[in-house]
Amino acid sequence: MRRISVFGATGSIGQSTLDLLGRAPDAFGVVALTGGRNIAALAAAARAHRAEVAVTAYPECLQDLRAALAGSATEAAAGPEAIAEAAERPADLAVSAIVGAAGLVPGLRAAAQGTTIALANKESLVCAGPLLLATARAAGARILPVDSEHSAIFQALAGDDMASVERVIITASGGPFRDWPADRLARATPAEAVRHPNWSMGARISVDSASLVNKAMDLIETREFFGIPPERIEVLVHPQSIVHALVAHVDGGVIAHLGPPDMRHAIGYALNWPERAPLPVARLDLARIGALTFEDPDPVRFPALRLAREVMAARGMAGAVFNAAKEIALDHFLEGRVGFTAMAAIVEATLARMAAEPGFTSAPDRLEIVLDFDHLARMRAAEAARSLAGG
Amino acid sequence: MRRISVFGATGSIGQSTLDLLGRAPDAFGVVALTGGRNIAALAAAARAHRAEVAVTAYPECLQDLRAALAGSATEAAAGPEAIAEAAERPADLAVSAIVGAAGLVPGLRAAAQGTTIALANKESLVCAGPLLLATARAAGARILPVDSEHSAIFQALAGDDMASVERVIITASGGPFRDWPADRLARATPAEAVRHPNWSMGARISVDSASLVNKAMDLIETREFFGIPPERIEVLVHPQSIVHALVAHVDGGVIAHLGPPDMRHAIGYALNWPERAPLPVARLDLARIGALTFEDPDPVRFPALRLAREVMAARGMAGAVFNAAKEIALDHFLEGRVGFTAMAAIVEATLARMAAEPGFTSAPDRLEIVLDFDHLARMRAAEAARSLAGG
Repeated sequence: MRRISVFGATGSIGQSTLDLLGRAPDAFGVVALTGGRNIAALAAAARAHRAEVAVTAYPECLQDLRAALAGSATEAAAGPEAIAEAAERPADLAVSAIVGAAGLVPGLRAAAQGTTIALANKESLVCAGPLLLATARAAGARILPVDSEHSAIFQALAGDDMASVERVIITASGGPFRDWPADRLARATPAEAVRHPNWSMGARISVDSASLVNKAMDLIETREFFGIPPERIEVLVHPQSIVHALVAHVDGGVIAHLGPPDMRHAIGYALNWPERAPLPVARLDLARIGALTFEDPDPVRFPALRLAREVMAARGMAGAVFNAAKEIALDHFLEGRVGFTAMAAIVEATLARMAAEPGFTSAPDRLEIVLDFDHLARMRAAEAARSLAGG
Repeated sequence: MRRISVFGATGSIGQSTLDLLGRAPDAFGVVALTGGRNIAALAAAARAHRAEVAVTAYPECLQDLRAALAGSATEAAAGPEAIAEAAERPADLAVSAIVGAAGLVPGLRAAAQGTTIALANKESLVCAGPLLLATARAAGARILPVDSEHSAIFQALAGDDMASVERVIITASGGPFRDWPADRLARATPAEAVRHPNWSMGARISVDSASLVNKAMDLIETREFFGIPPERIEVLVHPQSIVHALVAHVDGGVIAHLGPPDMRHAIGYALNWPERAPLPVARLDLARIGALTFEDPDPVRFPALRLAREVMAARGMAGAVFNAAKEIALDHFLEGRVGFTAMAAIVEATLARMAAEPGFTSAPDRLEIVLDFDHLARMRAAEAARSLAGG
């Protein structure tokens, strides 16, 4: 039996993970589950999976969690330090699926124990890739990607030496605004932005997909995870979201990973790695789909990919600043205070301003410095947003 | 330095192989080259690559070959037994690229020496798969596929256990007649049939592609080579010939092999295996291609795939009979004696008649019985063709 902890158990990835664990109760056991304010969902999951411990990030929710777990065998705990301690409990695999910079700590703590990490938390690599990778390397912890694109690259690379890889190509659906002209894009509403054509995801990541900011994060993650030079990573718009990534070799051969858009594939792949086990996902039927289409991303309407390339060139704290700024820009957009295209402007202004901060170019090798830059970048991004909203 | 022999050096695959060898003279040396009546091409290749020996299949051509090689360090030889002896010369890899049943012997002889076989000769697997595989296994010889579809499957499988494979899907361009109605198909001429939309190939294989007979051969080869049950092998029509094969796993993930249609990729992959080396083939640019389309093959207009499934179900000598009958049918079509759609009828009639022959169901585990059935099936197919042409 493989013993699993899930950090971010009540979110989209966490719930999909629990769905898969619940279908193979003989193969998997649950150690720790963590969540936020959705105590009912957290407690229900802990009961259903007989978790050792359930942790809410919010101390003020501890009483509710204790009440909801009354009579079960699951311990209740609360607060960021309790989450970090849960990450240190012995487990075979920790699913790092907390959204945002808060997901950094449990991933690092679990990796430091040598626990295999199934990594869905993009920020771990974008903000602090070198730190997480060095921590994992030192402890002998394996990191498995859970993002569909990175799982696709990982699977497409199987058996091949990175030395023979000429290019890695990740795909982007292009989101709901792929065909929108620039002037209409500027007036796009949050309700329009969350209507992702293919993937069922939370609101925040759906907006990030619509702006290609999510793909910008993927690009940075790809560089960190696989150690591929930025100029050898390409992004291809592919509206059907069937081909998730392609690995192009020096001999002209290209290995691609395809599948219907369903996060349970990438999650289940990580849970069962290095084996493959049957998963309840739809089977690919290309004759029914008929056509897969591809186009280059438009760098004018969607500047996020250019910003990602600037972040990769700058390194240091640029990833942490990019992530913090896009989070604040997203808050402002979702709250109706800035327009859709203003988000990239906020990120760009924040990157430009933060580049002058002492330590910006230093490697993200300590959590404290990453969190300091995250904090400062959020303030600067909020200033940039206010200035744009007032202008 | 890897020492290579090329059987069928003057054909399309052989010439492409020599092109690649010539580009990496430090990596490869040439042992034996064999050809047919094109003595000038054979001698030129032997001189250019400083081959140890050059062999023509035709004893009456030996004098010409000797003359053409005068003053070079290359020995000249002639006849089927000289080709078989050349296959027994020590080499690291033998490219088996003779077209037709004549390619069986050198592949078997080289495999029996433990030499790695780069297998382009489809008949080796279609007619006598169990014999070749058992010979290779006994001698510890590895067989690498050179057909684009089988190289694609081989590459897409890398690192994965066959146990996790749910389906293997090979693609077919659909050929020049993909959209033709049945009545027009019946009147198709050889000149129309050889115009393959994507691949540059010889006339015979181009016609086999137009009728999907080539894909029928691929289907049988896939079953033999990878040991996949027929019901788990699918054929998908894909007019752009960019996706060559897909391997679908039990977890819903699909690994595909893509690349511009250029045989030098599959050949170069085998020559360099298990490494990948840079090859002079075009790089895949999906944005420029724009769309990849897929459709199910039409079983009514193209009965070849149904016949292949009957061959796989029958086993025994059915593969040898199928191959012999399709060769004779092709001769008659190319000579204008039967129509395009009559080819499948000739194959089907021959299979039905040969099924009653003693030994039809026995395993093709001896070359003699395979060649006997090949011989008899050719006679029966010629009878069927004459009966159709006269009718």
